Amino acid sequence: MSIFNVELKKVVDDSYEIEIGFELEDKLITDLKNGLAGNIQKFAVVTDSIVKELYADKILAKLTEAGYHADLFVFEAGEKQKTRETKEMVEDAMLAKGYRRDCCIIAVGGGVVTDLAGFVAGTFGRGVPFINYATTLLAAADASVGGKTAVDTPLATNLIGLFNQPEKVYIDIATWKTLPKRQLSSGLAETIKHACIASREFFDYLKEHIEDIQNINQEACEHIADENCRVKYQVVMKDERESGLREILNLGHTVGRAIETVSDYKLLHGEALSIGMVAEVKLANKLGYMTKEEGEEVISLLKQANLPVAIPKYIDREALVKKLYTDKKVKNGQLRFVVQKGIGDIVEFSEGVFATPVEESEARIIIYDM
Amino acid sequence: MSIFNVELKKVVDDSYEIEIGFELEDKLITDLKNGLAGNIQKFAVVTDSIVKELYADKILAKLTEAGYHADLFVFEAGEKQKTRETKEMVEDAMLAKGYRRDCCIIAVGGGVVTDLAGFVAGTFGRGVPFINYATTLLAAADASVGGKTAVDTPLATNLIGLFNQPEKVYIDIATWKTLPKRQLSSGLAETIKHACIASREFFDYLKEHIEDIQNINQEACEHIADENCRVKYQVVMKDERESGLREILNLGHTVGRAIETVSDYKLLHGEALSIGMVAEVKLANKLGYMTKEEGEEVISLLKQANLPVAIPKYIDREALVKKLYTDKKVKNGQLRFVVQKGIGDIVEFSEGVFATPVEESEARIIIYDM
Repeated sequence: MSIFNVELKKVVDDSYEIEIGFELEDKLITDLKNGLAGNIQKFAVVTDSIVKELYADKILAKLTEAGYHADLFVFEAGEKQKTRETKEMVEDAMLAKGYRRDCCIIAVGGGVVTDLAGFVAGTFGRGVPFINYATTLLAAADASVGGKTAVDTPLATNLIGLFNQPEKVYIDIATWKTLPKRQLSSGLAETIKHACIASREFFDYLKEHIEDIQNINQEACEHIADENCRVKYQVVMKDERESGLREILNLGHTVGRAIETVSDYKLLHGEALSIGMVAEVKLANKLGYMTKEEGEEVISLLKQANLPVAIPKYIDREALVKKLYTDKKVKNGQLRFVVQKGIGDIVEFSEGVFATPVEESEARIIIYDM
Repeated sequence: MSIFNVELKKVVDDSYEIEIGFELEDKLITDLKNGLAGNIQKFAVVTDSIVKELYADKILAKLTEAGYHADLFVFEAGEKQKTRETKEMVEDAMLAKGYRRDCCIIAVGGGVVTDLAGFVAGTFGRGVPFINYATTLLAAADASVGGKTAVDTPLATNLIGLFNQPEKVYIDIATWKTLPKRQLSSGLAETIKHACIASREFFDYLKEHIEDIQNINQEACEHIADENCRVKYQVVMKDERESGLREILNLGHTVGRAIETVSDYKLLHGEALSIGMVAEVKLANKLGYMTKEEGEEVISLLKQANLPVAIPKYIDREALVKKLYTDKKVKNGQLRFVVQKGIGDIVEFSEGVFATPVEESEARIIIYDM
């Protein structure tokens, strides 16, 4: 018998920049010229069927014009396309066009595109660099910090994937102008969630500026993009592997994800989240972590953002309760809910645990009451 | 415009142990009890249809007996199963049985199993730990150091995958007794390659002990397992991301991989490698890096190991040349071959480059001459 020791201790630097601005296509090219992706000359631009014509075509043209070898890889738009099949399709198309290890992926789109393209990049040739060019508020709020990439499978959401950090993220506010109003509101839900988690000041800013944001006022939009990054970064930095603190980002997501599924994705992610946040506000009220007034402030801001704050009639409430309490996370008949304390703070229940267990009967009362 | 800096610099320790011994099943259980996989209580044992009955069933029983929750995930044996489809199948079966992030994968088998299971582990729940229990000489020689995991696709071999390090590797020599003779010889090809790369002394040991190894003499087998790890480790340690030095591990693989494909996998990997090494020995002879006698020594050792040293009649030589020179790696009509210098040394052509470009016409002469 013998033991052989493989020593693999090393310093890894995955740091990157998020650039927030207006029309950043030329900046992307300048950055590439200045070595953002090293010596790489081949760029796979991954996008969806909607963003293609809006922005990806333009970026492709600029890459080609700058002398780079670049191709477009387009998949059908929509949350339902975030699958292993789409990943395979992109991989095969890249391989067929001769892409190997010496390429860089540029994801142009919203969260579905950046999640999927980041995952493709992580396993293509055992890992090639990638850049996110985020074109939605939701991607700005959710997908630019944290390195989470994944696809969905019939049995689980976001469970097949990787932690993978981009070379750089661009948040191009100008692209929000072409976002359908519903999508913009959907992104605002994550923004409001971030404020509820971490900053009363940011919450008040939103109350005051929600109309500016809806009108894509550059200053207001840049401010919220920046705050979104800041809150998420604070949380993620302290807990890169989602062991404890990161759980607070799930505020509103317990009911939110369930309702999103039960609606068969008729509700957008942010819309489902908004309803989930109302459920969790009601829970926080009940548990005494939030006053009735604070709860109403949250609900009122969600309404201002044109988000739903009640469970739609077409949702079977019992199916929703069942969905929640057959989840793998249910332990001893209890499901854990992240609960906020007032606005801008989170209850820490015990060291490293930010969620409280809730019985099915309690959850049922709240849900039937919405 | 504003820039947000995401700082992600950290020390990562992926170190692990390779334990080489005889019947290590109980040792695995003891290690788990002693915290090898932390507090994890759920183990997904991934194996193939041949190894299942030979070893994986036994390991599953021992895990269950020790009080762990464990299930077997079995796929059809064979190189052709190392696909994204098999990966999906394992993932879906794990999800269906309730496996989530709190599990550990134990790969029991040869290189196909460890490559595939290591890749599954890398993306399941964005990464769960895994342990390799290697049951073939090839896995011992090739798959225990380096962290390479991957699947094949119709358009590319090993191009979709990850660098992912196991928690521990067990090389159980006792399992080699059930290896078909062809498989054992196939594993010896990688072993001989390692000797040719890095150690005249190891090469001489193999010449003397090849029969002991074929008879699974414990001491001789442990010695070669150890030397295999040592050589591979030396190379991989110096170059974890395969930018330069690691290229020398491709000795024999340029022709080897091409012939493996052209044979439609009728040749085992090590058999194809053996033929590839003969081709590269002839090239080294021609270029003056190896004497005729040294070349014959290598060929003679391959023969001793019952490995083929000529291109089988059923292989279309022109198809082989074509396969080689339509490879993506061909640049300006030249393909790069790693070349050894004498035995146990490698020619360094220029800093960080260990392969020499060869014209199609030169390669054709060598191939038609075999």
